[in-house]
Amino acid sequence: MSKLPHIGTSIFTVMSQMATEHQAINLSQGFPNFPVNEQLTEILSRLAKTNIHQYTPMSGLPSLLDKIAILTKQSYGRTVSPKEEILITAGATEGIFATIQALVKANEEVLILDPSYDCYEAPILLSQAKPIRVSLNNDFTPNWEVISAAVNEKTKLIITNNPHNPTGKMWSEDDFVHLEKLVDAYPNLLVLSDEVYEYITFEQPHISVHHRPKLWDRSISVSSFGKSFHITGWKIGYVIAPDYIMKEIKKVHQFLVFSVSSIAQHVLNEYIDLVDVKALGQFYQQKRDFFRNLIKSTRLTLLPCEGTYFQVASYANISDENDLDFTKRLVTEFGVATIPISTFYAQGNDLKCIRFCFAKDEETLQKAAERLLKL
Amino acid sequence: MSKLPHIGTSIFTVMSQMATEHQAINLSQGFPNFPVNEQLTEILSRLAKTNIHQYTPMSGLPSLLDKIAILTKQSYGRTVSPKEEILITAGATEGIFATIQALVKANEEVLILDPSYDCYEAPILLSQAKPIRVSLNNDFTPNWEVISAAVNEKTKLIITNNPHNPTGKMWSEDDFVHLEKLVDAYPNLLVLSDEVYEYITFEQPHISVHHRPKLWDRSISVSSFGKSFHITGWKIGYVIAPDYIMKEIKKVHQFLVFSVSSIAQHVLNEYIDLVDVKALGQFYQQKRDFFRNLIKSTRLTLLPCEGTYFQVASYANISDENDLDFTKRLVTEFGVATIPISTFYAQGNDLKCIRFCFAKDEETLQKAAERLLKL
Ligand SMILES: CSCCC(=O)C(=O)O
Ligand SMILES: CSCCC(=O)C(=O)O
Repeated sequence: MSKLPHIGTSIFTVMSQMATEHQAINLSQGFPNFPVNEQLTEILSRLAKTNIHQYTPMSGLPSLLDKIAILTKQSYGRTVSPKEEILITAGATEGIFATIQALVKANEEVLILDPSYDCYEAPILLSQAKPIRVSLNNDFTPNWEVISAAVNEKTKLIITNNPHNPTGKMWSEDDFVHLEKLVDAYPNLLVLSDEVYEYITFEQPHISVHHRPKLWDRSISVSSFGKSFHITGWKIGYVIAPDYIMKEIKKVHQFLVFSVSSIAQHVLNEYIDLVDVKALGQFYQQKRDFFRNLIKSTRLTLLPCEGTYFQVASYANISDENDLDFTKRLVTEFGVATIPISTFYAQGNDLKCIRFCFAKDEETLQKAAERLLKL
Repeated sequence: MSKLPHIGTSIFTVMSQMATEHQAINLSQGFPNFPVNEQLTEILSRLAKTNIHQYTPMSGLPSLLDKIAILTKQSYGRTVSPKEEILITAGATEGIFATIQALVKANEEVLILDPSYDCYEAPILLSQAKPIRVSLNNDFTPNWEVISAAVNEKTKLIITNNPHNPTGKMWSEDDFVHLEKLVDAYPNLLVLSDEVYEYITFEQPHISVHHRPKLWDRSISVSSFGKSFHITGWKIGYVIAPDYIMKEIKKVHQFLVFSVSSIAQHVLNEYIDLVDVKALGQFYQQKRDFFRNLIKSTRLTLLPCEGTYFQVASYANISDENDLDFTKRLVTEFGVATIPISTFYAQGNDLKCIRFCFAKDEETLQKAAERLLKL
């Protein structure tokens, strides 16, 4: 009877609830636990008393759209039209939902690369289309042979996520060359590029789909102010797409939420001038290194982490429980909440790996590590 | 190629843009132009510096859910479970979209009563279902003969809107008796009750779907903090539905936006204790009466207005232009923006009527009336 019979409660809700129940340190759901920038709260506090409480225009506050265009130009060299090619959304999630619903028709196929974030599948199923889930390589790079074999005339969209949640892996220039070839070969194929962690990158710079002129006309990128400004609760992000695609996305967005929080938009319109998103990588790199150093003393094995605020670790030489059981034991017996990697796979592949969110203050990370030492 | 080939830019966007271009008084799109309550901005300003910036739980801040349950009990006598039967949404629009997408399957039918608000159709079409549009009576009461004739085994949902946008009409007890009979006769039929103007009612009290125990189990109601607290830009509302239906709505909401503005939820959680929504009717009744008195001096003919902040007027004895042309001339030549009623009809019925929003300060209403005197 349900339209989504196989969809349950998201693992992030489940684990955050368990963390609360067991008074565990919550390194599961991805959100910062430190105070947000004081300049930001200052602006919010001041603007509260001004005229920021009624509908903004449907696609966003014009001045904020202009500034997003400038940021996109500065970051990736791409010129986008604020009016025609940018849409402010109720978080990246709404942007992804609206995009999929606007573009993907019944019986078409959408490629998802596993492990993958959990919000892609529902809007595909609700469009009566078919999610085709293909595994990344063991090192979480895209497997272009497998991907190419999975694409066909019915493939409408390939969803990419770079930097990658949950693994922290980033795409290489070479991966984009492969993607361009695919898009060239299949005129019906578009790319939905989930880039919400675009500014949280470490040793190597992020290669956005906007960096690649040959992909522009066939791609939709999704960004998140929540991730870039440490304000996940604000639920504000944006989508960039060429005009002919954006027209369709706006049709859906218009009747899905109509517009996005006027408070958030007015405040970010001031704050975006004060903040240097390029400093974000350095900020989180320090946290990553701090956390990795702590975890090295435990019996967990660290996997590489090139971007995002997530660190994956293997417990293979501690236990052969499946990762869901291990995660549950970690919360209940050790007081640390994490996310089991198998939940990011359609087939539930159990790699004996768990994901930590290190967007936390040092005290929290330290306390968690102390508990993990007992493993 | 488009999934929504017949859907263009919403009339509210079109008219608000025209209002700006022509520096007209904007009585088109429904939003207040007066300052919001100072206690509300005070709370926002104060809470800005506290820990309100990260994700709230998926279905809403628990304490705000509790308070919505209390309000529902006080207003309509209905006991609802905060955890299982209430969902906080990114405005009523998202609540409506998520509900339709969660419940309506391909090839099912959904009844819409014209004239009707414009956000119902897109989620029906995206579900590959069929919107069936049936006209209200000439006095904008439901025509139960026509409605009954239109319902069949394939009808999944009937969308009701009470108090009614754009006409300000309200349902009678008798209408609900008819609705109950229909729902009794068709076990597959559910009711989506758009009640966003529930507290903006005048001579007679609002009859909510929650007032009617026999309808509870088969209905979904949608409410709007934007309308009740004069904060349309905040984009926050809520849905109430019985557990077995709510489970399905939450599945969609979870992957559509995940959660709603944490700022808005924390602030409303305090503000809701201070405000008496029952006073809202009186507040707007005064504006309605003030505006109606002004319009009486013009050549426009007023229709009744029982609720909402919209007033419909006929220009039939001024001009026989169609209402879209008349509306455009009103903006460009007279400097007053309104909404043509034909745009609320699938078939574009031209009743020679336009809709004014009177949620404005007295000066604005007065200025508009002065301009309309020249008609
Ligand atoms: C929407 S809750 C999940 C937050 C997140 O992005 C993650 O933990 O991966
Ligand atoms: C979402 S903009 C339209 C506002 C409104 O509810 C109306 O004017 O009818």
